[in-house]
Amino acid sequence: MSDIPLSIATLNRLLAEVVDLRNAASLIAWDERVCMPPGGVPVHGDMSATIQRIAHDKFTSDELGRALSDARRDAESLPPELPMARLVRVAARDYDRAVRVPGDYVEEHAQVASAAHQAWQAARAESSYASFQPHLEKLVRLARQYAGFFEPLAHPYDALMDPYEPGILTSEVQGIFSVLRSRQVDLARAIQDRPAPDAPFARAEYGEPQMLAFSTEVISAFGFDWTRGRQDKSTHPFAVPIGSDDVRITTRFDPRNPFEMLFAAMHETGHALYEQGVSPEWNRTLARGGASLGVHESQSRLWENIVGRSRPFWEHFYPRLQQGFQSQLGSVALEKFHKAVNRVKPSLIRVEADEVTYNLHVMVRVEIEIAMLTGAISTADAPAYWNTKMQEYLGVQPDTDANGILQDMHWSVGLFGYFATYTLGNLIAVQLWDKYTADDPQWAARIRRGEFGSLREWLRSALHQHGRSYTPRELVERITGQQISTAPYLAYLESKYGELYGLSPIGPA
Amino acid sequence: MSDIPLSIATLNRLLAEVVDLRNAASLIAWDERVCMPPGGVPVHGDMSATIQRIAHDKFTSDELGRALSDARRDAESLPPELPMARLVRVAARDYDRAVRVPGDYVEEHAQVASAAHQAWQAARAESSYASFQPHLEKLVRLARQYAGFFEPLAHPYDALMDPYEPGILTSEVQGIFSVLRSRQVDLARAIQDRPAPDAPFARAEYGEPQMLAFSTEVISAFGFDWTRGRQDKSTHPFAVPIGSDDVRITTRFDPRNPFEMLFAAMHETGHALYEQGVSPEWNRTLARGGASLGVHESQSRLWENIVGRSRPFWEHFYPRLQQGFQSQLGSVALEKFHKAVNRVKPSLIRVEADEVTYNLHVMVRVEIEIAMLTGAISTADAPAYWNTKMQEYLGVQPDTDANGILQDMHWSVGLFGYFATYTLGNLIAVQLWDKYTADDPQWAARIRRGEFGSLREWLRSALHQHGRSYTPRELVERITGQQISTAPYLAYLESKYGELYGLSPIGPA
Repeated sequence: MSDIPLSIATLNRLLAEVVDLRNAASLIAWDERVCMPPGGVPVHGDMSATIQRIAHDKFTSDELGRALSDARRDAESLPPELPMARLVRVAARDYDRAVRVPGDYVEEHAQVASAAHQAWQAARAESSYASFQPHLEKLVRLARQYAGFFEPLAHPYDALMDPYEPGILTSEVQGIFSVLRSRQVDLARAIQDRPAPDAPFARAEYGEPQMLAFSTEVISAFGFDWTRGRQDKSTHPFAVPIGSDDVRITTRFDPRNPFEMLFAAMHETGHALYEQGVSPEWNRTLARGGASLGVHESQSRLWENIVGRSRPFWEHFYPRLQQGFQSQLGSVALEKFHKAVNRVKPSLIRVEADEVTYNLHVMVRVEIEIAMLTGAISTADAPAYWNTKMQEYLGVQPDTDANGILQDMHWSVGLFGYFATYTLGNLIAVQLWDKYTADDPQWAARIRRGEFGSLREWLRSALHQHGRSYTPRELVERITGQQISTAPYLAYLESKYGELYGLSPIGPA
Repeated sequence: MSDIPLSIATLNRLLAEVVDLRNAASLIAWDERVCMPPGGVPVHGDMSATIQRIAHDKFTSDELGRALSDARRDAESLPPELPMARLVRVAARDYDRAVRVPGDYVEEHAQVASAAHQAWQAARAESSYASFQPHLEKLVRLARQYAGFFEPLAHPYDALMDPYEPGILTSEVQGIFSVLRSRQVDLARAIQDRPAPDAPFARAEYGEPQMLAFSTEVISAFGFDWTRGRQDKSTHPFAVPIGSDDVRITTRFDPRNPFEMLFAAMHETGHALYEQGVSPEWNRTLARGGASLGVHESQSRLWENIVGRSRPFWEHFYPRLQQGFQSQLGSVALEKFHKAVNRVKPSLIRVEADEVTYNLHVMVRVEIEIAMLTGAISTADAPAYWNTKMQEYLGVQPDTDANGILQDMHWSVGLFGYFATYTLGNLIAVQLWDKYTADDPQWAARIRRGEFGSLREWLRSALHQHGRSYTPRELVERITGQQISTAPYLAYLESKYGELYGLSPIGPA
């Protein structure tokens, strides 16, 4: 970035400060979930609120607004592919969104969400939707108000998705769902008609230190850079970047679900490899990080499901796993184990869902969000709507609201417009995978040898390095030559699970 | 704090934000030393610099200056003992100091110190004073310039000590040293004439997990509040408060010095109990924290040396230690062990010094600082000066500058005026101890039972709760009815070590 116009240099300097503050907020959030003693709650809350408020004030300040306006003017005469031109576009996109939302609204939202989250925790513990409903009502009203800041819109829900998935429209998501819905429902039903794999070894006792050692071996093989990251324990696994050179993931061990640790570690490593792979040229800029939640999720899903539940992967790693767990797995054949880690079983809980049913959980949530937002249903109607949809898509009925509409924390903190990103991630993952395997015909042989460098470097070069400097749409089209699409995903799913469950060919004639 | 004048409420609101930022800077510093992966250095540096700059800008802003000026006016009509009046005085003291130092100076100092610290690390590794000297020269010039901002002064060194020990004068410290010097030199020499205790068990092999478990038992008995703090490992032990309700200490294990972990844990716990004991009414104010470095050090010294190396302490804990380390200590009598942990041996390295010689190390440093600051010696003269003083006070000669003038990191980051606080801490510790033992005649019986609640609560009530709301001088006088004084300290030292080493009565006739 030599010969950088003064206006852009000024903008970058102001934004670097905002990025520093946001990184600090990330570190505080990580610390809260990994290190903080219980007494630290208030002091962490104060630090975090102050830093986020200062970051917001600085980002939406007149000074930054003027710098951005000058930089936009000067960027017009630059080739649009130039990194600094892309950077100005990212800043403009974020700024234009941020300044539309009044400070009073941000404050009210934070207060309502804080109370709602507390209420949700209690409501879920008691499975009492009624005590959460008034809070949800307020949050839906706030979501509607938020959408109002962005009018005119083709659909009010567009405004809610935009922060997580820039440029993706409600009509597109609805189109995607209408294709996926019947095909995934049919696939899940066809599988349910087949005998369920018997896998007593999946419920055996496994030692936590041994499982941690194995999962650490796997993510090291994937290429997690331990000099620029770390792994800790936390209640729920997550990944958080404090810049590209300090990317932290967490894991947990549940003795009743011993392999969860392993697949969750692969999942978080997918997120981490993306962050660690962003080009250093985006350090201290708004272009650092992932292009969207959907693109981020594509990386976690790719490593967890497409790679980590694949036959070649286990051809390499299963003998090593057997070695570590002789008594549990010594007599279990690879084929049986591979089938067990790809078991399909419609369940009530999204975070426990398999590949075949996951999107169906997402659809239930997105459809209810849209219906509440547009007033098609009231918040009072939502639990019955939820249960009906679960029966229709998954053939299961929540026994309680805790295992139904109260299960996810998203709404309790005001996250509307978020869920669709999981499905977009699933689609994008397969599109990227198809392109990679076409570019590297040796892919299966490499994975069978435990070599993941070729895949990782392909992803870095095609995707990771660009950070947020392209939109999700631009990225997918640049890399695959296609728009975000359902066909590759359905082909992957129907082929993989058709084979695993010995189904007759399914899908459209 | 009901009926708080608007001016003071405004001031408190502005200061709360500064405190939040400083707490965040503390968390980042802790993370750097405990968690950060190596790649995180630049991103942490940026976060930390930005947050500290914003905190400084906000603290010295016109808005805060006006609020403080209004608050000072309104505080004049309040009883001076009222918490809010004390708070305004603390804020005024800090503000008046901060605004005297120009931003350009702060920036230059940060740059010089950063380069000097790098140079010092290399210089110490190679024991090459010559490569550090140009940096020290710049730092001394900056220290002189700093003192200039505070003229008129009785002594330029007063300005350097003030940030660490508010209100303490160079003349007082010199007076203290002139009393301590000959008495501590004489005591050390008398001890050197006695046979050294033989303690092969102090060099035996001890397991780290067992030693950690024992030291954790000890600091839990002292009253470290694990719900409002935590303990980790780091290269050098330290304590850092992120507010009063999240106080973090660190420890380390050196197999060549197995008991260091234990005494360092007691030391850091002394700091932590002070921070955890500050009254919640000072949360998010400038009055949170310790009154000065010297007062802080008094707490760490008290718990480590006066309690942790005392006979009653080991009467309780030695049988438990023996149980954990049968093969190493099973046949070692309590008396022998107690004498070993109070071994006196003049050494080259301050951080390894015993109670009798510690202040002598401090004097060497303070005397050189004053001599360089006033131009009595040049930085070129400093190593020879150091070695002469070491010979004179401790009877030892550094073999290398690495084990001599280059051993401490303080000067390399521009910390002049800091060392005297260690000696002040030693004096204050004994003054507080004398008052406590007078107030609680059962003290020895309690400690023999492993009960430390009485001491801890006495300290909390007398000292900890007040945070920074009184100056060190005010605190010592309020609690003990005396000024900071050498006599109790010398009496403690001469009595304890006279007894341990079977010396004939020493001290002034």
